[in-house]
Amino acid sequence: MSVTHPAGFTAAGIPIGLKSTGAKDLALVVNNGPSKASASVFTANRCIANPVIWSKEVVKDGKVEAVVLNSGGANCYTGPEGFATTHAVAEAVADGLGVAAGDVVVCSTGLIGLTNSREQVLDGVRAIVPQISADGGDDAAHAIMTTDSVSKQVVVQRGEGADGWSIGGMAKGAGMLAPQLATMLVVLTTDADVDAATLDTALRAATRVSFDRLDSDGCMSTNDTVTLMASGASGVAPSAADFTAALTEVCTDLALQLLADAEGADHEIAITTRGAASEDDAVEVGRSVARSALFKTAVFGKDPNWGRVLASIGTTSAAFDPLDLDVAVNDVWVCRSSTPDADPAEVDLEPRKVTVTIDLKSGEHEATVWTNDLTHAYVHENSAYSS
Amino acid sequence: MSVTHPAGFTAAGIPIGLKSTGAKDLALVVNNGPSKASASVFTANRCIANPVIWSKEVVKDGKVEAVVLNSGGANCYTGPEGFATTHAVAEAVADGLGVAAGDVVVCSTGLIGLTNSREQVLDGVRAIVPQISADGGDDAAHAIMTTDSVSKQVVVQRGEGADGWSIGGMAKGAGMLAPQLATMLVVLTTDADVDAATLDTALRAATRVSFDRLDSDGCMSTNDTVTLMASGASGVAPSAADFTAALTEVCTDLALQLLADAEGADHEIAITTRGAASEDDAVEVGRSVARSALFKTAVFGKDPNWGRVLASIGTTSAAFDPLDLDVAVNDVWVCRSSTPDADPAEVDLEPRKVTVTIDLKSGEHEATVWTNDLTHAYVHENSAYSS
Repeated sequence: MSVTHPAGFTAAGIPIGLKSTGAKDLALVVNNGPSKASASVFTANRCIANPVIWSKEVVKDGKVEAVVLNSGGANCYTGPEGFATTHAVAEAVADGLGVAAGDVVVCSTGLIGLTNSREQVLDGVRAIVPQISADGGDDAAHAIMTTDSVSKQVVVQRGEGADGWSIGGMAKGAGMLAPQLATMLVVLTTDADVDAATLDTALRAATRVSFDRLDSDGCMSTNDTVTLMASGASGVAPSAADFTAALTEVCTDLALQLLADAEGADHEIAITTRGAASEDDAVEVGRSVARSALFKTAVFGKDPNWGRVLASIGTTSAAFDPLDLDVAVNDVWVCRSSTPDADPAEVDLEPRKVTVTIDLKSGEHEATVWTNDLTHAYVHENSAYSS
Repeated sequence: MSVTHPAGFTAAGIPIGLKSTGAKDLALVVNNGPSKASASVFTANRCIANPVIWSKEVVKDGKVEAVVLNSGGANCYTGPEGFATTHAVAEAVADGLGVAAGDVVVCSTGLIGLTNSREQVLDGVRAIVPQISADGGDDAAHAIMTTDSVSKQVVVQRGEGADGWSIGGMAKGAGMLAPQLATMLVVLTTDADVDAATLDTALRAATRVSFDRLDSDGCMSTNDTVTLMASGASGVAPSAADFTAALTEVCTDLALQLLADAEGADHEIAITTRGAASEDDAVEVGRSVARSALFKTAVFGKDPNWGRVLASIGTTSAAFDPLDLDVAVNDVWVCRSSTPDADPAEVDLEPRKVTVTIDLKSGEHEATVWTNDLTHAYVHENSAYSS
């Protein structure tokens, strides 16, 4: 159900022939109100796709009626013709729904530089509008998949009956999970009654500690978009704190689903840096380890190589004493005060989930960054799949 | 010959049992003067090995008598005992040569966290000192190899007879070739008569455009050391410009030898960024592409994926118009003005050497950064080899 679990939303997902496999490749999520409040965040990449150029303008007034998403082509670096296609798609959705094109967010994912047939996409839009329904969330979540092996969906429910409200979400992305946002399209819906400004603050707070801390391969996509729409249909207006907490739960759940399905990964690695002088220090240290090709291949090889962790920490500007660092892998403290401690043979790296704990002994702050190991399968998928 | 080609240098390389294979693992290079001028650069990593802690102090006065190097153990994060071993090694070399321990640079390479037997290393030092000779350069170059498949040596000769002078060099390093310096030990020798201050300026200029622009896997070692010693034995004092040019030739040659032997690489990739507003912009753009796991796997898969090049450029702070970038692979301009141009099928990625040319169209500056592709063999070697 995901995005159609909250009251006030309809959705659909259908195949329109963009994917050569015949799988679903066009999704539409519509906010039926009464409120049309919205907030969005986009990739921090300066090279952005046509749908992102368009959607950044759409979301500025805090009002969004619908999000239309296609897989099978990123519409990135396709020139003015590609932008015209994005614009035409928004117009076609608007015509079908009786809303303004300037309130329709467009998302695309797939190959960069590939131009989809405009008529094919517009035919698809005309076909999907009549099919939206209150149980279309699952179809929509499947239609945005690319190399994803499973759809990513989540619902968080707060309260029941007249006091109840919920947030639903769907995501796609299994590679290029990156510094600021993953290659990632995310649609979040809620029937809580929350204004656009509060949605914006909550969304930035929630993505900062979830999607932003997912760094599968250090690469940053040109198309990342996260759009949150609030229908207000529950009639419940939670506090900003309660709403932010629920939204953070939704975003973290989806982020971990993305991590679990990252292309070709054998391990999901949670790197927690504690004893940091600031949260920024903790994130910088965690990210440096998450980007170490040497550490990531070591984990693939089931080698708790703490030397490669220290070598990564040393590249950061965080506050620490290089001669007084502790490192644990799966809670075995293989390095204490920057010297060998527990026998690395005690670390069991057979399980898929791995924790790395770094103690900088320089403060009270802590943060967790998530990444994957670097495997033969990653190399295979990314050398064979052109994106 | 390499480091013993210039007059005034002797060297040796012998097996002392640190490597389980029985291969040579201890090297010594001695400057017999008359000058003992020297300059060094070290890893920018803040987590540094005991030999680097020691050697940074040794080189401060611009005078170095000898460099002793071992493979088979990095002596990094081995605690006070490890530092005492480094110190004892320098004392033993000094005793053998009749010089001051404070003028002996020590370098180690191999596993982090591994403590070599101090007696074993000291026995080795006592064994190697009597074996130094004017033709020991080749043995020394072999003794510093770790996962290197070939030794790296170079000689640049300027002039002949009484007007002649030369620079010789040896290097090791086949992985962790990194942002500032590679996991790399380099000894450079010259019989030119050049003072320490001029050596320092020349060395920084030469490494800035050679080793510093080699970025095989984005990782930075804890042990990198480059030491240049000048004996003055030729009696020739070249201009600073001539010396710097020759030294840059030596460093670039060694850097490209390291690139060619990088662990598990199928391709050597030269990324040239032109039309940059500054040299720093050009280097930042080149490095961003050199660090894109997605682009590097695409090259392995013989896919000239310019979309992944643009996605990397977009993560930088360089000056450019995202809608007006040109990209060529092997001189085929597959992307012009940020849209598809020449057919990617025209790009032949069978040969080992690959060029990527990026035109930012924002200025007159240019720089080249070198990297390798990301292959199954890289994952295999780095998951199986613990360092």
